[in-house]
Amino acid sequence: MSNTSETTTRPLPPGVTEADLDNALAAFAEAIGAENVATDAESLEDFQDPFQVPGTATNVPSGVVSPRSTEHVQAIVKIANQYKIPLWPIGRGKNNGYGGAAPQVRGSVMLSFREMNKVLEINEELGYAIVEPGVSWYDLHDAIEAGGHNLVASIVDIGWGGVVSNTLEHGLTYMPYSIDQASHCGFEVVLPNGDLMRTGSGAMDNNPTWPLYKRGLGPTSTEMFMQSNYGIVTKMGYWLMPKPETYMPLWLRVWDEEQMPAVVDALRELMLDGTIDMRPQLSNTLCMASMLTTRAEWYAGEGPMPEEVIDKIAKEMGLGRWMMRFALYGDEAVVDHNFAKLEARFLQIPSVDLVGQKHGKEAWETLPNPHERVQIGVPSQDLYKMAGWSGGEEGGHVDFSPVIPLTGKNAIAAQKMMREMCAEAGLDFLGGMLPINARSTTFINVIAFDTKNPEQVANAYALAKRMVAEAGKRGYGEYRAHLSFMDLAADQFGFNDHALRRFNETIKDTLDPNGIIAPGKSGIWGTRMREAGFPQQM
Amino acid sequence: MSNTSETTTRPLPPGVTEADLDNALAAFAEAIGAENVATDAESLEDFQDPFQVPGTATNVPSGVVSPRSTEHVQAIVKIANQYKIPLWPIGRGKNNGYGGAAPQVRGSVMLSFREMNKVLEINEELGYAIVEPGVSWYDLHDAIEAGGHNLVASIVDIGWGGVVSNTLEHGLTYMPYSIDQASHCGFEVVLPNGDLMRTGSGAMDNNPTWPLYKRGLGPTSTEMFMQSNYGIVTKMGYWLMPKPETYMPLWLRVWDEEQMPAVVDALRELMLDGTIDMRPQLSNTLCMASMLTTRAEWYAGEGPMPEEVIDKIAKEMGLGRWMMRFALYGDEAVVDHNFAKLEARFLQIPSVDLVGQKHGKEAWETLPNPHERVQIGVPSQDLYKMAGWSGGEEGGHVDFSPVIPLTGKNAIAAQKMMREMCAEAGLDFLGGMLPINARSTTFINVIAFDTKNPEQVANAYALAKRMVAEAGKRGYGEYRAHLSFMDLAADQFGFNDHALRRFNETIKDTLDPNGIIAPGKSGIWGTRMREAGFPQQM
Repeated sequence: MSNTSETTTRPLPPGVTEADLDNALAAFAEAIGAENVATDAESLEDFQDPFQVPGTATNVPSGVVSPRSTEHVQAIVKIANQYKIPLWPIGRGKNNGYGGAAPQVRGSVMLSFREMNKVLEINEELGYAIVEPGVSWYDLHDAIEAGGHNLVASIVDIGWGGVVSNTLEHGLTYMPYSIDQASHCGFEVVLPNGDLMRTGSGAMDNNPTWPLYKRGLGPTSTEMFMQSNYGIVTKMGYWLMPKPETYMPLWLRVWDEEQMPAVVDALRELMLDGTIDMRPQLSNTLCMASMLTTRAEWYAGEGPMPEEVIDKIAKEMGLGRWMMRFALYGDEAVVDHNFAKLEARFLQIPSVDLVGQKHGKEAWETLPNPHERVQIGVPSQDLYKMAGWSGGEEGGHVDFSPVIPLTGKNAIAAQKMMREMCAEAGLDFLGGMLPINARSTTFINVIAFDTKNPEQVANAYALAKRMVAEAGKRGYGEYRAHLSFMDLAADQFGFNDHALRRFNETIKDTLDPNGIIAPGKSGIWGTRMREAGFPQQM
Repeated sequence: MSNTSETTTRPLPPGVTEADLDNALAAFAEAIGAENVATDAESLEDFQDPFQVPGTATNVPSGVVSPRSTEHVQAIVKIANQYKIPLWPIGRGKNNGYGGAAPQVRGSVMLSFREMNKVLEINEELGYAIVEPGVSWYDLHDAIEAGGHNLVASIVDIGWGGVVSNTLEHGLTYMPYSIDQASHCGFEVVLPNGDLMRTGSGAMDNNPTWPLYKRGLGPTSTEMFMQSNYGIVTKMGYWLMPKPETYMPLWLRVWDEEQMPAVVDALRELMLDGTIDMRPQLSNTLCMASMLTTRAEWYAGEGPMPEEVIDKIAKEMGLGRWMMRFALYGDEAVVDHNFAKLEARFLQIPSVDLVGQKHGKEAWETLPNPHERVQIGVPSQDLYKMAGWSGGEEGGHVDFSPVIPLTGKNAIAAQKMMREMCAEAGLDFLGGMLPINARSTTFINVIAFDTKNPEQVANAYALAKRMVAEAGKRGYGEYRAHLSFMDLAADQFGFNDHALRRFNETIKDTLDPNGIIAPGKSGIWGTRMREAGFPQQM
């Protein structure tokens, strides 16, 4: 344990004395080893919103504990209860568009899973892995390859994130199993009182269906531990897909902005009938361009980029006004049939073009386009550049991401709201739809800014907040909320005078009366933290 | 309200006085109308295990309330809390293999949804229905047809059951959306305190994605209300599939019993790679025969039917030793490709034959074979005959249904256990596998008996109980438990000294401190009922 003597400037959790924090940190060190507890500035610098103006964030931690086993997590939780120390669990800490690895409550102790990163099992016959919460997309991919398994994992765009933490956040991946974010099967959970539980079939000792059947007997609590603060997930089953005979990445371009709703409606039809069985990304010109170039290369003016510049980017970069990344997987004959069907349907829409190329498994690891690797489970950092649209190396973004019905009409309504509000704030509109299933889609507005420009940063965060409230009035809720407006986002779920909040807080108070696990997560605080004056942000 | 004067012989809930029961019944009548409250013997006779020896059941109700609205349900729950009356909610009350419509606790008041049977909405563009809990499979099918919608619902074998109640029980259906029992999206729930909540996106007023996106922001409680007693579901979204271009019911027969595991392994491979995308039924000779004939037609002896008689049935009825009912759905070209693939794979296995025939939508409603209608969403009662294997019109069955990995090795192990235990009890072995997904399957042992033979009934129930315990030792848990051994089945889920039970009972006590909603459901009682001496059965 380093630098615990540097106590004068350190943040304290609410209601916790310097002495109690010291005692808690000493107890953590005793329980899990001093080398797994840190409070020095260098160890803590990762645990804040990476895109806030440096030095302005107030929600910073007092320490970090890095368990190496489930028993360590149980010990940490018990000590946290004793001293009423809020813990903020993170997997890899790369949730950058939504507040990064920062805790919600100042002075929290980070519970970092970076040292618990073992792929515990891969079963090829039944197609699953069991992973610890610190396993990254790289770790999982590499374990599958190292074992020579005929399996692929559905992954995210940027490989450094965590499999468990992304799943727990309802995060998107793209392959067939990603529909409804339903690739997980069975959690092991440390409850706030330190008790160890397994959900689904894992609640029976030695039940081989724990990673195979999502339920057990009686109510299933698995999804109560997602986007939640009711417990800490320490193991998870994740389904892996047998490698298909062929993989065909597809690119569809829409050159006439007016045709976007027609594409959305065709997409829904083709997802409903099973022709498209994965998660497409339908991005507008600027969203797509932001992964390949920066704003400054095209336009130096203030305010939102003019339409004619967007048109120029669309043409010169060959992106179209909307561009859809998607794919077909399966037997070659079926892929051929479905590609012909996609052509017949999409090419009815004016200004649309579509290309696709089949690849056998020997080609997947080295496809030149990182988008095309992502869709077949090969992770990289190549798509991280988006954050640099405004500000280059020091670019940042906050993401606003409501869920809307997958219809052209709803897509137009949501886009109109976002585009107008971005324009009013003087910001470019970078938007993309990422269907959750055949019926609904997230419509993500990537609000990009230059972190060197404090005014623009503040402007962007304020805009995102206004959008959350405005979308709520229209019946659109966020699928995932930024730390800085989590309470506001949760507040939009107001059916029957916030019945859901009453329910959630009742469960929270029962399971975690001291409010030690991730207070404020998804707007759930519990009585102790509410009495201590939280939430403070709305 | 009829016959409340007939109080002398009526069952009383535990700890409730005659006067309080009268007061509660009067308050129910006041709140929801006297015509919706009944206590007479005729009204109550449906609410018991239909297969117990008549007159022997002790878990019988004291009354039945039939709400006509969600507000009625809220009023009923509040009154039940006031007088501590246990309520036992049922949809259509047809859960016959698992105890029927009987309550777990003697003297409970049945909450029957037979009068709340409206299909509230069918949306063709987005493929869903919103239904009340009394909607039967017939009601849903008829509403889709009446509206002329290009949609089909995944249904059960026997049409009289309830869509919501089957879903809440983790019940099986068969079409592509049935995989993982995941066709539902969004519940409206009356909590035990009478509060009204909507799960998933429905927690936001006017959110159009309530029936489209299964989650909202924060933890999702939907599955906490399945097989549970934490609340009463009053509305549910149910996904409907666009009618496929073609539907091909398939029949596979295995003539050599020894080849069953090879078929199971091939089935897993073909489900994992998506060739088979629905829920097959793989039934042994006697299970299949029991839907078409009775035992007495073949054999009059005591004890389990000899192998040579089973062989005779297999041959004379053309069933094989195992018979698999399954289907392909989709574009004709894809169905043709997949059928060829099934032939190539399954016909490698000795003694297997396979037939299939394509049908366009105009033929579905009138297919002569009820099995083939079920798999395309056309309900009937034609498959109800199973219950008559032993005893004809007065035949009964209890179902024991563990979940096992979908591998030949596990199928053999489970079958060996069941067959031997049936034989020891002198009973025939009727077995069938109904995969939940590509990785796991229920292995249902239909224990058939003659309800006119009290000794055989007792024998069958005792056998099922022994099987629950024996399977538990092997790590197999039931996907659904009979009322008569629900506690024992729940008891098998013993990981970490019954951590799940501790969790479930904690939630129960918090949400339902008076223990009024379905006490004992899935082995969850809560403190008040445990202090009153429950469970009584183990």
